[in-house]
Amino acid sequence: MIEHLAIVGATGAVGREFCSLIEERNLKPRRISLFASTGSIGTSVAVGTEKISVEKLTPYALDGVDYAVFSAGADRSREFTPIAVQAGAVVIDNSSAWRMDDSVPLVIPEINPNDLADHAGIIANPNCSTILLGLVLWPLHQVNPIRRMVVSTYQAVSGAGTEAVAELRTQTAGLLAGNPIAPRVFPHPIAFNLFSHDSPVGSDGLNAEETKMIAETRKIFHEPGLAITATCVRVPVVRAHSESVNLTFHQPITPQEVRDLLSSAPGVKIVDDVDRGRFPMPAEAAGCNDVLVGRIRQDTSQPDGCGIDLFICGDQLRKGASLNAIQILELLANA
Amino acid sequence: MIEHLAIVGATGAVGREFCSLIEERNLKPRRISLFASTGSIGTSVAVGTEKISVEKLTPYALDGVDYAVFSAGADRSREFTPIAVQAGAVVIDNSSAWRMDDSVPLVIPEINPNDLADHAGIIANPNCSTILLGLVLWPLHQVNPIRRMVVSTYQAVSGAGTEAVAELRTQTAGLLAGNPIAPRVFPHPIAFNLFSHDSPVGSDGLNAEETKMIAETRKIFHEPGLAITATCVRVPVVRAHSESVNLTFHQPITPQEVRDLLSSAPGVKIVDDVDRGRFPMPAEAAGCNDVLVGRIRQDTSQPDGCGIDLFICGDQLRKGASLNAIQILELLANA
Repeated sequence: MIEHLAIVGATGAVGREFCSLIEERNLKPRRISLFASTGSIGTSVAVGTEKISVEKLTPYALDGVDYAVFSAGADRSREFTPIAVQAGAVVIDNSSAWRMDDSVPLVIPEINPNDLADHAGIIANPNCSTILLGLVLWPLHQVNPIRRMVVSTYQAVSGAGTEAVAELRTQTAGLLAGNPIAPRVFPHPIAFNLFSHDSPVGSDGLNAEETKMIAETRKIFHEPGLAITATCVRVPVVRAHSESVNLTFHQPITPQEVRDLLSSAPGVKIVDDVDRGRFPMPAEAAGCNDVLVGRIRQDTSQPDGCGIDLFICGDQLRKGASLNAIQILELLANA
Repeated sequence: MIEHLAIVGATGAVGREFCSLIEERNLKPRRISLFASTGSIGTSVAVGTEKISVEKLTPYALDGVDYAVFSAGADRSREFTPIAVQAGAVVIDNSSAWRMDDSVPLVIPEINPNDLADHAGIIANPNCSTILLGLVLWPLHQVNPIRRMVVSTYQAVSGAGTEAVAELRTQTAGLLAGNPIAPRVFPHPIAFNLFSHDSPVGSDGLNAEETKMIAETRKIFHEPGLAITATCVRVPVVRAHSESVNLTFHQPITPQEVRDLLSSAPGVKIVDDVDRGRFPMPAEAAGCNDVLVGRIRQDTSQPDGCGIDLFICGDQLRKGASLNAIQILELLANA
């Protein structure tokens, strides 16, 4: 039972999706408070049949809240989640602020729900690309451990927020009209272009998205030495991330075995119809709760039969963010 | 010296690019004949300061031609290249028709120019993604042989011809105006979407683009057992293909060694400025003769120091097709 649910960042891309999931998942908290940045205060957001006014987040605004979901960026989380915990709330944090903190569980409910038992007030929701990847690979890893993965992503602009979606639209319209518009949200033009993921690049040459995917997958899988390499790329797609994944298993495995294992995996849908040329596409994954997987085939560059290639598409605002957070909330509230 | 050059498919995406390169490369054939499909006959194409009228291709039209460049699809090549050879011409064929024929050299001039010596009238120009990949990897492979490569592509629509570019533009404009337009050239919507490469998928689960990349790289490198796996994807980019490449070398190698080797590689330009966030992008590679490479970093999932990740962007109509063909023509004509 949820007495008083707070949603911080309620007007952002993930926050709005979370609000729409409250109705869909039949969550029924007794009371809901919505918070957002200064510009959105006073606007209202639909939650089911109700219209709820957005409030200003202050240290006192969280008094009496039993669950709080934060999707307002790492800085805001660092400032306000300790205050929320102090006030007695359990926080599900969608930012990167606490994910790699040893005292904070990082949870994908289909993978490591038991880690929730150890929380000290904050549970971290993983990075979007990491959730989509982990959800598909975990059922395979349970049966035939993955020795190494090579991932290349094709990430939609909505992962960078609603302003990024607007930029893709206006910049594309401008280009089509012969009137180029300079980038403002992204560091480079996104219309009919793509670029290395727009997160800071470290001294090891990895961008932050790649570092997150490696470190978070290891933490969620409880495999600190799991061999992962990733290349994260932003593409001119509105919604749903795609990932090209090359896998090395400990034991030989066939595409049919992969299909059999994934056919009963929760939250995973196989779209892999060679005869009709139907494989996962972001346009079909957008708005879906399931993560789509296809192009499942033997990687013959690994002659021992331990290699598999596959392609994933998933809505990073749904399972990649809001849906995963609400599943965590359900587990906590029903515990 | 070129007496009479024929360009078959002169009004297509590659053909037009080839025509513009004739001036740029100062080729000066004594006579040029342009051929295209029925709909284009009578139109004229600019070659330098000249406007040349497009003719109908018949078996007799190639009499007296000493060099013919075909970019008109595999069917047209299968029908007309033997006729051209019979008439005494040397053919550079940009289609997939002859690439894997043992009697036909498959050439990237920076890699295997000596294979030209063995031709029997036809030289095949490799697949676009294969050329871009091979050009960057060959200088590394010469010094420290590549043991395995994992490639994921981000392929522009212009690789599918001028009609595909028009479809991306009109479909995107439609979507922005809230007026979705059904796909006609591609099997799936391309506007703000992406999909597994639109070539036929074989019983091994590989699409034809992936099969070409594997088989052609092995032939060009003279390494029939080279371990390669590829995932080829079409993205809503107008021009220039991108490739995310993971490499396993025989010996340990550092990112700096890769940079040093590539800094003097012909046709390759390093764009890898971590401080300024500048890496290869299709918008910058479009129209360039050089293939851009960046994101050069150690792949720590390979603990022996033999792993490297990098990212490539190259204009598939230039080095990926027309420029490579004209370089072959130059080698033949100057031999």
